[in-house]
Amino acid sequence: MGPLAKRSANFGRQRGQRPHGRQVSRPSFTQGLARQALAEFLGSGGLVTVVIGSGIAAERLSHDAGLRLLENALITGAGLVALILAFGPVSGAHFNPVITLADRVFGGVTNRQVAAYLPVQLAGGAVGAVAANLMFDLDAVSISTHHRSSGGLWLSEALATFGLVVLVFGLARAGRAALAPFAVGAYITAAYWWSSSTSFANPMIDAARTLSDTFAGIAPASVPMFVLMQLLGGTVAVAAVHVLYPDVAAVADDVVVPHLG
Amino acid sequence: MGPLAKRSANFGRQRGQRPHGRQVSRPSFTQGLARQALAEFLGSGGLVTVVIGSGIAAERLSHDAGLRLLENALITGAGLVALILAFGPVSGAHFNPVITLADRVFGGVTNRQVAAYLPVQLAGGAVGAVAANLMFDLDAVSISTHHRSSGGLWLSEALATFGLVVLVFGLARAGRAALAPFAVGAYITAAYWWSSSTSFANPMIDAARTLSDTFAGIAPASVPMFVLMQLLGGTVAVAAVHVLYPDVAAVADDVVVPHLG
Amino acid sequence: MGPLAKRSANFGRQRGQRPHGRQVSRPSFTQGLARQALAEFLGSGGLVTVVIGSGIAAERLSHDAGLRLLENALITGAGLVALILAFGPVSGAHFNPVITLADRVFGGVTNRQVAAYLPVQLAGGAVGAVAANLMFDLDAVSISTHHRSSGGLWLSEALATFGLVVLVFGLARAGRAALAPFAVGAYITAAYWWSSSTSFANPMIDAARTLSDTFAGIAPASVPMFVLMQLLGGTVAVAAVHVLYPDVAAVADDVVVPHLG
Amino acid sequence: MGPLAKRSANFGRQRGQRPHGRQVSRPSFTQGLARQALAEFLGSGGLVTVVIGSGIAAERLSHDAGLRLLENALITGAGLVALILAFGPVSGAHFNPVITLADRVFGGVTNRQVAAYLPVQLAGGAVGAVAANLMFDLDAVSISTHHRSSGGLWLSEALATFGLVVLVFGLARAGRAALAPFAVGAYITAAYWWSSSTSFANPMIDAARTLSDTFAGIAPASVPMFVLMQLLGGTVAVAAVHVLYPDVAAVADDVVVPHLG
Repeated sequence: MGPLAKRSANFGRQRGQRPHGRQVSRPSFTQGLARQALAEFLGSGGLVTVVIGSGIAAERLSHDAGLRLLENALITGAGLVALILAFGPVSGAHFNPVITLADRVFGGVTNRQVAAYLPVQLAGGAVGAVAANLMFDLDAVSISTHHRSSGGLWLSEALATFGLVVLVFGLARAGRAALAPFAVGAYITAAYWWSSSTSFANPMIDAARTLSDTFAGIAPASVPMFVLMQLLGGTVAVAAVHVLYPDVAAVADDVVVPHLG
Repeated sequence: MGPLAKRSANFGRQRGQRPHGRQVSRPSFTQGLARQALAEFLGSGGLVTVVIGSGIAAERLSHDAGLRLLENALITGAGLVALILAFGPVSGAHFNPVITLADRVFGGVTNRQVAAYLPVQLAGGAVGAVAANLMFDLDAVSISTHHRSSGGLWLSEALATFGLVVLVFGLARAGRAALAPFAVGAYITAAYWWSSSTSFANPMIDAARTLSDTFAGIAPASVPMFVLMQLLGGTVAVAAVHVLYPDVAAVADDVVVPHLG
Repeated sequence: MGPLAKRSANFGRQRGQRPHGRQVSRPSFTQGLARQALAEFLGSGGLVTVVIGSGIAAERLSHDAGLRLLENALITGAGLVALILAFGPVSGAHFNPVITLADRVFGGVTNRQVAAYLPVQLAGGAVGAVAANLMFDLDAVSISTHHRSSGGLWLSEALATFGLVVLVFGLARAGRAALAPFAVGAYITAAYWWSSSTSFANPMIDAARTLSDTFAGIAPASVPMFVLMQLLGGTVAVAAVHVLYPDVAAVADDVVVPHLG
Repeated sequence: MGPLAKRSANFGRQRGQRPHGRQVSRPSFTQGLARQALAEFLGSGGLVTVVIGSGIAAERLSHDAGLRLLENALITGAGLVALILAFGPVSGAHFNPVITLADRVFGGVTNRQVAAYLPVQLAGGAVGAVAANLMFDLDAVSISTHHRSSGGLWLSEALATFGLVVLVFGLARAGRAALAPFAVGAYITAAYWWSSSTSFANPMIDAARTLSDTFAGIAPASVPMFVLMQLLGGTVAVAAVHVLYPDVAAVADDVVVPHLG
């Protein structure tokens, strides 16, 4: 539960054990994992709904291209604050395969959790795209024709994902995961603008955005390079976190060890 | 006092008892309820004033439809931060019948409190609409002719209310109600944009907005379906909170049990 | 030191006493009062610089009247967050005669402090107006010709000041003065928009804004009624705070008793 | 580590010592300094990328000059929140030679740290400018031709730097450095607007902005006077902090003494 580990530790206690007590039994574990998967599903869906829905509204209501992007960026940031606060204590509020994989490297989640998180993130994102389309009286699904390919865009995705992963795990390792909702919201709002790609920084978002041929969409053919650059940025970030915050045990009162399985 | 329970617990102490002490006497209880009703009245009025007043200003001052909505959304979010901070410690800062009813299901308020909260919320909202109209030199009341009816709008209201209730009670159950002012402010700002209905998510707001034929108004005929979808979204959300946060007792140091009556 | 009392209590300790220790000696008291006056001077000046400076920039750079007001409002809110954080621990960060007078009623400041605060607030505000004018290469002083008089404007000023005073002292009485920078910043940003007067809510601001014939200016002839309505709103608010938060002693661990004189 | 001292104290513990324990050994010190330098490099680079990148995007996407500046200002503020949160616990998150020099005066950093911080800040800023240019498919470096010289601009830089230094060290001396990310983000967003110079307030930023002939650029010939006014404002601010917060030892539980070398 790396990024928001401190709060998700409450889960263990909710299942009847005391801190430092025995492992929870297998049935409880399964229930806990189901609950975490539900949180990742709802949170990923909510994030995609915010991104695509506010993009549709911006495109319909505003004429200035910059104003549209500002609306999309501010609303995504505000939505992230709420979503991470709502679901963080349950699942860690990853909503992003790169975060989940990085958390695996840091030992915050088990292989079993990774296997549960990744598919529900993708499924949630797809449902979120459909929900946004339907709310705005569009077809449930329309494949985006918005091609996004250039060296500048790819560099943007690598740097944006690098920054996101350094931020999330830097906060966790410094024992300040409680600030993650505000930090990530501010970061993503800014990254819409300092990058040329509007900072997807999330393979789940890449996939979900193919399902809406609107402002925030991305053509399927542009997705593989985005994912590749995101994984690259995330990998370098994991190394940077190890260098910057070498000894996580020193703040063990704030960072939680894996508490399930 | 579910959503902001921790702070409203101070009320019990203010009436002369210690935590875990005896029940307060009936006269004190009545005084406390009157104070809570006053807070719900002022807070609901303030919320409606912010929504309608900023809508009138936006319509008068800006030409771009998106900019108008951005102004309305940002100002509503900022206003909510202030209003929940100002009145939360007294009444829990519901300002919304769906929140009050959900709190009743979770055992945070008594039937008597529900009976006091709902009418003062509606009355406060009406006074807030009149105040906004008068500040902008309009007639005290003008019935809105802004019809808002479509499948997309109704889906929006159900989803927006679902998200609001999950957020508010998720925070309370995770022992983080102190963050509610910022979480709810960010959520509503975002929901203006990711939904197609601009996210009323509140039957009190539905009713009050009928009283101003301006930017934020809604025609009375459109209200029933909005209320219905809000109740539907709220009901599903209550179930989701039970699944996501099953054992509230585990965080009993943060979540307050009913302390009056 | 009502509104931000908890932090300003550090001052007493800085002068060599321990909490619950003896009163500070008279020389220390004088030094402390001078320091507080300096903080009120700098903070009031900074607030006026933010309001007038951002107004000039908005008028020069943007064409849409709503966008100008949005810029002015967001920047004033952000500036208030920084100013209250910078000076709150020293003086309580009043920057507003209505707040200082209300704090006197609540017993948070002495008559001697009131006599020091009010003139330095006004002097600071005047210097701030001059600084804004000079930064934008205007004459140091130009008397505003912007008349602001109507029933709607006056109602706005009364309501805006009412809300500000309820918020500030509600936070203090609930033991949450640490949130005042964010609460007041959000409140003022919102009040620019839900009122028709753009919410001056502060006699010091009224006076200082007469000194710049730019976007944020106010003609001297319009000031008296603004001040009157602000005092009216503030007075009703003091009564409301007494009703809403009747027993401040119940949260005595958070609210600080007068610690000087 | 003045400004964010409390958190960087964790570093000492991470190297194997307990609070109040022995000094770390020389090799650990060197490792710590390298880590701090890396944090200052990445943070300064990130800050410049945010400033220049969002400036390029604003210039390309928006027509209204005020909207461009609003985008640039809001995104810089949001970026600062994230950057200070990410790197503050490691290096103190200076990203600004004036802050580092002022911290030296207050005894928060050693001469050796100053000698490491200043060059990596400048190098990071240059790399950040190149990254922004490349992301937007521009030449890696283009010298700015944007001349910025006038009395109003110079006054702006002096006042903006004065305010920044008072804020950062006021927070540290009041034991509230944990709020610095939000305080500094809000401050800089506001200072873009209340000053006529858009508030560079940072010699590292002056230098880096010469490397991009875009919205945020500054011609090299305009830099010396900016630096001079920034140093002047910073110097006066150090004196003001001494007057406003005279006895830092009184809050010694919050403010950290130099912990390395």
